[in-house]
Amino acid sequence: MTAPRPTPPSGGRVEMIHGAGGKAMAELIASIFAPALANPYLAQGNDQAALPIPAGGRLVFSTDGAVVSPLFFPGGDIGKLAVNGTVNDLAMAGATPLYLSTSFIIEEGFPLADLDRIARSIGAAARAAGVAVVTGDTKVVERGKADGLFIATAGIGVVPAGLELSGDRARPGDRVILSGSVGDHGVAILSQRENLSFATDLESDCAALVPLVAAMVAAAGPALRLMRDPTRGGLAATLNELARQSGVGMALEEAAIPVKPAVSAVCELLGLDPLTIANEGKLVAVVAPEAAETLLAAMRAHPLGAAAAIVGTVVEDPRRLVRMRTAFGGERIVDWLAGEQLPRIC
Amino acid sequence: MTAPRPTPPSGGRVEMIHGAGGKAMAELIASIFAPALANPYLAQGNDQAALPIPAGGRLVFSTDGAVVSPLFFPGGDIGKLAVNGTVNDLAMAGATPLYLSTSFIIEEGFPLADLDRIARSIGAAARAAGVAVVTGDTKVVERGKADGLFIATAGIGVVPAGLELSGDRARPGDRVILSGSVGDHGVAILSQRENLSFATDLESDCAALVPLVAAMVAAAGPALRLMRDPTRGGLAATLNELARQSGVGMALEEAAIPVKPAVSAVCELLGLDPLTIANEGKLVAVVAPEAAETLLAAMRAHPLGAAAAIVGTVVEDPRRLVRMRTAFGGERIVDWLAGEQLPRIC
Repeated sequence: MTAPRPTPPSGGRVEMIHGAGGKAMAELIASIFAPALANPYLAQGNDQAALPIPAGGRLVFSTDGAVVSPLFFPGGDIGKLAVNGTVNDLAMAGATPLYLSTSFIIEEGFPLADLDRIARSIGAAARAAGVAVVTGDTKVVERGKADGLFIATAGIGVVPAGLELSGDRARPGDRVILSGSVGDHGVAILSQRENLSFATDLESDCAALVPLVAAMVAAAGPALRLMRDPTRGGLAATLNELARQSGVGMALEEAAIPVKPAVSAVCELLGLDPLTIANEGKLVAVVAPEAAETLLAAMRAHPLGAAAAIVGTVVEDPRRLVRMRTAFGGERIVDWLAGEQLPRIC
Repeated sequence: MTAPRPTPPSGGRVEMIHGAGGKAMAELIASIFAPALANPYLAQGNDQAALPIPAGGRLVFSTDGAVVSPLFFPGGDIGKLAVNGTVNDLAMAGATPLYLSTSFIIEEGFPLADLDRIARSIGAAARAAGVAVVTGDTKVVERGKADGLFIATAGIGVVPAGLELSGDRARPGDRVILSGSVGDHGVAILSQRENLSFATDLESDCAALVPLVAAMVAAAGPALRLMRDPTRGGLAATLNELARQSGVGMALEEAAIPVKPAVSAVCELLGLDPLTIANEGKLVAVVAPEAAETLLAAMRAHPLGAAAAIVGTVVEDPRRLVRMRTAFGGERIVDWLAGEQLPRIC
């Protein structure tokens, strides 16, 4: 696909006509989306993509809506986030992500240059994750009826027969492994919103976890019980979800949980708990105890898991509580967040 | 799934906390989405659904964003529209739709009772179309940053080996068949927006075309070249897309195109062309001439195709024009719509 770009966007803005299903929409797609996302399935040019049926044990299907504000932030943008959000949800089932769809809801007046930049970011993130954006939809709403741009992605992956990862598979005695530091994404966005200059080095961890997951599955095999990415609600929400789903408790060691100094500093300043802050390139794994060290070593050998750590143990607990031994030797309950802390974080 | 509804929505509103990934979101899902959409795949309770790999020739994948305003209209609502939009895009490839995902973007303050009503409508539409909503995502944005509710759906279907329908397969001599009257959806919504009391009987044609498509594939076999649903931009946009994609022209007979009297009346009053108005339960088929009458008879035997008609012929035309012989014996070019006519129609 080396066709010339019909109308390079320069200075223009999205108008209502771009969502009307006519020639202007076709030109928007041809000038911005097609070159950024080019692949043979998208080039079929129909309202749907016809795809080979993958060989494997099961299909995996997921969706994610991206409403992050601001649209561009240190370490990423809404396009990269929309791709990796769905890609990571597929990867957490042990699946190889294959195909993505993108649904754009655009506010009238949105700069075409920003749309082009975001489309290219989607293309780059998809290529990095090894997936193809094969179908899409574009809607435009009147000025004031959206906030620039929302993107919903959906994705299809395939998981090999015999690999069954699910949130209900944690058992007492299993180890809880975290792939790296918590809070980077949420604090990077917050720092930009609040102009916290001392945190300017901090970037979102937004990344596709696909290669890390492949290394983990290869290393731990059936000893790997489940994986989940601690996005909105942070590690606290994810562990509480898993405790509820598996009917167990969790015992964490605060000292073992990696938190970057800039994240700690912002959290202390603003009275936030890093365990409740969103991550976009981290995962939690639960693994049978005998495979924990092997899995940890495999994770640390990969750049996306270089700071991986065993942060706790699954315990019996009919109340399904997540407890944490604090750095000062006390204990506290790590609850779900009660209020809204950081809206529009993803 | 006969679990009691944890918090029946009555008088409440969606708050930012419902999108924070914590307990409030879990309760929103458990009280509204889970009971409305219940199926074993959704009940897996993970961030993705694991599904059996379907037997067939190819997967088909599509997505559709619903931004219709108003959210409730005669003959449907945004939920039914979101389901059928994706279901029909799958069906147009000859696919049996199997699985849907739903991504909700909700404005803070949206009434929980409306969300519940829409979730139930999604469930009913999915059951009617024979699909299961297996995975979803929920985001909440601040008051004034969206317009009540947007829904993006994506869907997976499977098409049997040997059935290859695509917009590039129209050939000169083929017949163009329309499954029924045009303009019903767009005019029904417009009438509600504009309070056109004389059009109050008119309902959107919003429907899943799956059973009609099954009957058509059975009747016409490989003589069926392609199908497409004329949504945004109407019949005019769809035929121009197909002409461009297949590198052909089209010759239409205006007198053969079914238009309901109420639709004609509204269009005359407002200066609209019914050929450019959105439909949500109609399709255009292109079929080899020798199978046209057989296909037409099969379509008319089905309630969704009772008013089907042969409306034109595919012709050679290097300019790829869609021409129409008017009811008065003249000829005009049916072009894509140049301006935005009816924003937020789907």
